Amino acid sequence: MFMKVVIIGAVAGGTSAAAKVRRNDENVEIKIFDMDYDISYSGCGLPYYIGEEIGNRDELTPRNAEFFKKKYNVDVFRRHEVLKINSEDKVLTIKNLDTNNVFNEKYDKLVIASGARSIILNIPGVEKSNVFYLRNVKQADKIKEYIMKNKPKSVVIVGTGFIGLEMTENLKNIGIKVTLVERFNQVTPGLDEDMAVYVEKYLKSKDINMILGDSVVRLKGEEIVNQVVLQSGKTIDTDFVVMSIGVKPNTELAKEAGIELGINGSIKVNKKMMTNIKDVYACGDCAESYSIITGKPLYRPLGSTANKMGRIAGDQLSGGNLEFRGILGTGIFKIFDMTVAQTGITEREAISEGYEPVICHNIKTDKPEYYHGKEMIIKAIADKNTGKLLGVQIVGYTGVDKRIDVFITAITFGAKVEDLFHLDLAYAPPFSTTKDPVMYTGMILDNAINRGRKLITPDELNKLIENKSDVTIIDARVNKQYEEVHVNNAINIPHDQIREKADELNKEKIIVTYCNKGVTGNAAQNILINKGFKKVYNISGGHKNYKAQTK
Amino acid sequence: MFMKVVIIGAVAGGTSAAAKVRRNDENVEIKIFDMDYDISYSGCGLPYYIGEEIGNRDELTPRNAEFFKKKYNVDVFRRHEVLKINSEDKVLTIKNLDTNNVFNEKYDKLVIASGARSIILNIPGVEKSNVFYLRNVKQADKIKEYIMKNKPKSVVIVGTGFIGLEMTENLKNIGIKVTLVERFNQVTPGLDEDMAVYVEKYLKSKDINMILGDSVVRLKGEEIVNQVVLQSGKTIDTDFVVMSIGVKPNTELAKEAGIELGINGSIKVNKKMMTNIKDVYACGDCAESYSIITGKPLYRPLGSTANKMGRIAGDQLSGGNLEFRGILGTGIFKIFDMTVAQTGITEREAISEGYEPVICHNIKTDKPEYYHGKEMIIKAIADKNTGKLLGVQIVGYTGVDKRIDVFITAITFGAKVEDLFHLDLAYAPPFSTTKDPVMYTGMILDNAINRGRKLITPDELNKLIENKSDVTIIDARVNKQYEEVHVNNAINIPHDQIREKADELNKEKIIVTYCNKGVTGNAAQNILINKGFKKVYNISGGHKNYKAQTK
Repeated sequence: MFMKVVIIGAVAGGTSAAAKVRRNDENVEIKIFDMDYDISYSGCGLPYYIGEEIGNRDELTPRNAEFFKKKYNVDVFRRHEVLKINSEDKVLTIKNLDTNNVFNEKYDKLVIASGARSIILNIPGVEKSNVFYLRNVKQADKIKEYIMKNKPKSVVIVGTGFIGLEMTENLKNIGIKVTLVERFNQVTPGLDEDMAVYVEKYLKSKDINMILGDSVVRLKGEEIVNQVVLQSGKTIDTDFVVMSIGVKPNTELAKEAGIELGINGSIKVNKKMMTNIKDVYACGDCAESYSIITGKPLYRPLGSTANKMGRIAGDQLSGGNLEFRGILGTGIFKIFDMTVAQTGITEREAISEGYEPVICHNIKTDKPEYYHGKEMIIKAIADKNTGKLLGVQIVGYTGVDKRIDVFITAITFGAKVEDLFHLDLAYAPPFSTTKDPVMYTGMILDNAINRGRKLITPDELNKLIENKSDVTIIDARVNKQYEEVHVNNAINIPHDQIREKADELNKEKIIVTYCNKGVTGNAAQNILINKGFKKVYNISGGHKNYKAQTK
Repeated sequence: MFMKVVIIGAVAGGTSAAAKVRRNDENVEIKIFDMDYDISYSGCGLPYYIGEEIGNRDELTPRNAEFFKKKYNVDVFRRHEVLKINSEDKVLTIKNLDTNNVFNEKYDKLVIASGARSIILNIPGVEKSNVFYLRNVKQADKIKEYIMKNKPKSVVIVGTGFIGLEMTENLKNIGIKVTLVERFNQVTPGLDEDMAVYVEKYLKSKDINMILGDSVVRLKGEEIVNQVVLQSGKTIDTDFVVMSIGVKPNTELAKEAGIELGINGSIKVNKKMMTNIKDVYACGDCAESYSIITGKPLYRPLGSTANKMGRIAGDQLSGGNLEFRGILGTGIFKIFDMTVAQTGITEREAISEGYEPVICHNIKTDKPEYYHGKEMIIKAIADKNTGKLLGVQIVGYTGVDKRIDVFITAITFGAKVEDLFHLDLAYAPPFSTTKDPVMYTGMILDNAINRGRKLITPDELNKLIENKSDVTIIDARVNKQYEEVHVNNAINIPHDQIREKADELNKEKIIVTYCNKGVTGNAAQNILINKGFKKVYNISGGHKNYKAQTK
């Protein structure tokens, strides 16, 4: 008798698992059951379907059940809900949602790829018909239909993660006024606050309303919601509401079957994607991942990770040896012309994990200015003790996706900050600067960690100032720039005068240098250190970053 | 007494060395001598200056002598030719080209960054005033001036390396008809021939004349050249000529001083950028590099490498410990909307270096098709014995620069093909596909090397056919596609029929499968292998690549 594999869920993880099993073995019987009507869809494309970037709905669901039968000899049963997993007898109880027929299905190996669903706030009004979520194609259809029918002029989007912001762009692009509500004091809470300010500033320039540090407590309206009430008492009139405050894994079924759960209620799996129960695997948005950096469990459901996990589960249960190597917690999104990307851990997380993080903010253009280069700011976090990169966040316009992928690759291979300078990256003016921003980031951190060129973040400097520490702040820019605006209490010694004027300064005092973005500040710092000054710090990201951090 | 560093050459290598010395040490005396008037210019920007992408000449030379004095306390002497290096007495003989004054200059440490110059063919007519080269700003000025004054309608560009092709784009863009002459049988001789065909086809579509496998033997014309005569006897009428057949290092001075030369006549240096003579360093386009892949010497002069070498030389001679880690031989250029990039070694080089290369051609879009993704073809070369990536060539339109940089980073850290799938690269529809093309490339090669899913290149298949080998070729596409065009002697078994029809095939014979780009061909291959077939190969890059290779 041939082995029979049953898979619960036919989106990214489940279909990847099925395809991999078939690639490895012609003889296995493979069945997939999914509650939904749409299968194997691109969840990440949904905001663009609503924003009409994607014209044809079929582009979101390129693969139907027939495709899986023909190509992989896999039977996909849509609109079938698995009611129970009996792992002792290896049998599932399944209900056909169209006929209400309930039947049993035996398996030899089971893959749970039941995905995740939107978190629903427990507040009055959430049940109203113009309160939307965006997890699957049906929900996207509903939003689209509502917009077409009712031509709404305004929306409140709750939550400023990447789905919330992608929806912001797409709804704004079709002429709807957007108000964002975020319970944290910053947008995109996955970023460190000092990077989120750049996103916030940009959103403001795009005429997006933002209410930060406030929560939705009530959705008011008779038939439909027409007002959102916040914790602070503030109210916002709106034509509809999009909730994007995160997702939670669909693991109730697994839990009832005695399968061990982990972080955020996701299914605990080992590197072979095996659960604690024999012959039961899990993958995709319902499964726990772990961080390459810390080695600790991490729940960061994404289509790309689901695909990986599915392929690994499929390989393992059909005799292969692929193992999951964890994730960096990478994320990227576009919001209008801006790209926001991150990988690894944040400064916040680095501190709470007990690292001694060294931080740099590197402001550089992605290409030469003469070739339309645009500025990006790279925040990189390295471990002082090992010199290894721990995480990177980038906010910019063009070329951000390239730099994050290079950082990701470097971090995956355990790169130390000094390795980045040596990369023989591809240079020509249409693509990069002679030294790529990635290389510069490495040089700055190498100088800070290994060569005594320490950096000070705007936040750290403000704390020094607040504590009335005895610190000399040197603005190394030309006088005109200094006159315009400068750090409080800073004195102006333009870089080309520092050589002569250094002798007037106290070598034992803390000195902070800065320029616009950091390069000339570092040059001034070099001169002072080479002249015997002991405690010289350069402002990370220069005055440009300092100013951005001062609300 | 303070140390005195003298540097010959003030472009990328020399100025990088100077800046690094100063960053390390305030007290060193630093002097740079350069024959040229323009210093520290962006050589790579020159084609775009001619094509008017760069409007302002100053953007090419953002840093003048005053800048180096002010910022780095470095004295730059332009229009000064070093006539002789006396390394015994540590003294240079230098001529001021403006005054003809000749003087001696002592040094404690010397850096030779004398660059490279265009190779000039030894044929009649090369001395004419409308025969141009493109190495420095002055030459670019001359071309620009000639174009403005004479409004030429046609140009012959000799050589199809990246300068030749960048000039092609830029001259075509200002309305000049371009004919390319290349002595090899392919364009961009740095690429493998099977990748060059994609560039060639694109150039044809852009109405660029190409004459391949032919050499220029004479430039005819009375006062100026108006006809180019080729080895074959062919003649081309033209209004001017651009020669871009490569560069050679400026190392006569070094050679006379007893400094050891290496590959292509470049200066031999160790990882500290030291020459064989004490206290004499070399860096930039005059210095020898070496390959990270083979460990062997390599001469591949580029601005990015010159910058690296300069920084390392400067660090070493001022007490630092930076060491050069070699290059991958990375190159990238844009030609109209196409991007061509490569890194590491080619298939050709892999064979001649004694590797047993495994080749894949991976045709994928850089983004989902619903998000305007465009196809690129990635040729990757891996070592069968170690599973390590040896080199990559990519031809495509958007996102090519990102993929090559990810490959570069992976190769630098010694990536094996199976590592690529595990990368947690940044995915969202505006930036990538769920599995990035880089990951797919790794999966294809992993399958070929470690999982018995062997590939056959179009070239290898054609040899099998020519040798009348007993091979069954299966076109796994739908019948309609097969009917349109297929590989000679191929039979049509659409993928969804292979399961049933497999039994009709001989399991011991060589079988070659293919589809359009490779994915379904691989699926067919999987089925046959899983059904016990022993020798099944999938065409690398599918019929699309096969067709491209058939001229």
